[in-house]
Amino acid sequence: MTIRLFVTGGTFDKQYDELTGALAFRETHVQHVLQRGRCKLDVEIEVLMLMDSLEMTDAHRGRIVEACRNCAEAQVVITHGTDTMVETGRALALAQLGKTIVLTGAMVPFTFGSSDGLFNLGSALSFAQVLEPGVYVAMNGRWFTWDRVRKNRERGTFEET
Amino acid sequence: MTIRLFVTGGTFDKQYDELTGALAFRETHVQHVLQRGRCKLDVEIEVLMLMDSLEMTDAHRGRIVEACRNCAEAQVVITHGTDTMVETGRALALAQLGKTIVLTGAMVPFTFGSSDGLFNLGSALSFAQVLEPGVYVAMNGRWFTWDRVRKNRERGTFEET
Amino acid sequence: MTIRLFVTGGTFDKQYDELTGALAFRETHVQHVLQRGRCKLDVEIEVLMLMDSLEMTDAHRGRIVEACRNCAEAQVVITHGTDTMVETGRALALAQLGKTIVLTGAMVPFTFGSSDGLFNLGSALSFAQVLEPGVYVAMNGRWFTWDRVRKNRERGTFEET
Amino acid sequence: MTIRLFVTGGTFDKQYDELTGALAFRETHVQHVLQRGRCKLDVEIEVLMLMDSLEMTDAHRGRIVEACRNCAEAQVVITHGTDTMVETGRALALAQLGKTIVLTGAMVPFTFGSSDGLFNLGSALSFAQVLEPGVYVAMNGRWFTWDRVRKNRERGTFEET
Repeated sequence: MTIRLFVTGGTFDKQYDELTGALAFRETHVQHVLQRGRCKLDVEIEVLMLMDSLEMTDAHRGRIVEACRNCAEAQVVITHGTDTMVETGRALALAQLGKTIVLTGAMVPFTFGSSDGLFNLGSALSFAQVLEPGVYVAMNGRWFTWDRVRKNRERGTFEET
Repeated sequence: MTIRLFVTGGTFDKQYDELTGALAFRETHVQHVLQRGRCKLDVEIEVLMLMDSLEMTDAHRGRIVEACRNCAEAQVVITHGTDTMVETGRALALAQLGKTIVLTGAMVPFTFGSSDGLFNLGSALSFAQVLEPGVYVAMNGRWFTWDRVRKNRERGTFEET
Repeated sequence: MTIRLFVTGGTFDKQYDELTGALAFRETHVQHVLQRGRCKLDVEIEVLMLMDSLEMTDAHRGRIVEACRNCAEAQVVITHGTDTMVETGRALALAQLGKTIVLTGAMVPFTFGSSDGLFNLGSALSFAQVLEPGVYVAMNGRWFTWDRVRKNRERGTFEET
Repeated sequence: MTIRLFVTGGTFDKQYDELTGALAFRETHVQHVLQRGRCKLDVEIEVLMLMDSLEMTDAHRGRIVEACRNCAEAQVVITHGTDTMVETGRALALAQLGKTIVLTGAMVPFTFGSSDGLFNLGSALSFAQVLEPGVYVAMNGRWFTWDRVRKNRERGTFEET
């Protein structure tokens, strides 16, 4: 089984620019996360975009949907900013792709050491292997169907609706 | 759903003793791993032992089996040394407990920074939620049934038999 | 010999706020840096302020000067934002305190793992013990007198003028 | 000013071998430590040996002494196991080289994240620039002359004799 891993950015891939003192995207760290996890799954990584999910438009979501539709794999994991993960989930669900699609992200950039990204990616890749077709969010060690989840911004966690 | 998490030791929980220069067990770090992962699952942690799995005897495995039998939860994750994870899996399978039991561990201690432990625990907790009753090993992002897996000691990875 | 360590903030002490996604000050990490370094010097820590050095006014610099004047110690290390470290050095030099005062900071927050803060604090505390009275900047493993140094903002390093 | 940095091993450069579960030497990490510290000193690195200092013989110390004698630089830093750092200091002092030689090391391997190595190397490089010719140990943020220091093995720290 090959799993397609689409990268869209989000906190997961932000890094500190020591010259400007700002957080910014430079490149994805997803392959380093997989190496750290000694992951031996057959994972096909593709960077679709590197952006803050608050800046995603319908056009960006359209690109994500088309990428999921057109890839050969039936299991897909998407790294995504947490703020609009659910909106992208809705767009994917409406497209009725018949695949197992798992969205995940991080509250702290992977490069910061204290990141939850390694845990979340381990979790998302696992759910992608065993959940039946559908669109899911994997965060905080849990899985949610796209239409039964919201981000609690005060707590920084995902919860059922 | 509450998941029972039994700690038995293994590389996962080893740490460096800077006075002796040796690797040793002092306490489990499992709760720090869950905090790092911002895990919001209902996890009940219990330390059964803190030992190198090469030193485990049948008596130790018996204790693990009894703990799995007697706990209230139907989903169990066990952190365990990788060297004899499969032997413990066999003991658990023979006991026919009717629970979903997932063994996991780490190739590098959690406290060393480069550890796969965070990834593996995210993975194991996820598989425990969705796999049907049985005894499994979760390593390298993959899941294996206890009777179809072995550790490749040259590569430091788990593979199907 | 006791060394006085004044904390003023700067990148050194910034941390990531996972709820807002911004870098902010919450508390100093200087004591964790000293623990990490197994520092056994007699260091007296005092937090004067926690701020970005670009926002420092003459009033803030006045407080730093007075703190250096009034403390009992003849050896002082100051953690400080790198952008205006030299300006604060000038204010301290003009006050002619007759003490060995060493300013240092970091290009990356201590909490990010890839920080230079541990190296810089080890360096600054060492220079403070052996340089004669004067006002110095310790960065990049080097020491500079306050009037012969500038920050090269393209390179993120300090260099002689 | 160029500083010569001789690497001899010690805990500083040990790393975890995830296949054997043992601590071992593979290569020095000194250049990574300097990069982490954004060190801009002119440092000439040379690996003399990579060994546990408890296994050093008079022949090994002879090689270290000759390397210090023969290098062009008058400022030398040596990374060294902490257990016999003082013995090597004695050998260097007896050779009366007229150089500033600073021995340092670490209680925890640099690759483990919680290492004091970054702090100690920042400290040792700083002392090497400003102390007059002699043989010194730089540990715990402090400097000691070779004949007035011992390692307290119960505490894991260096103290004056």
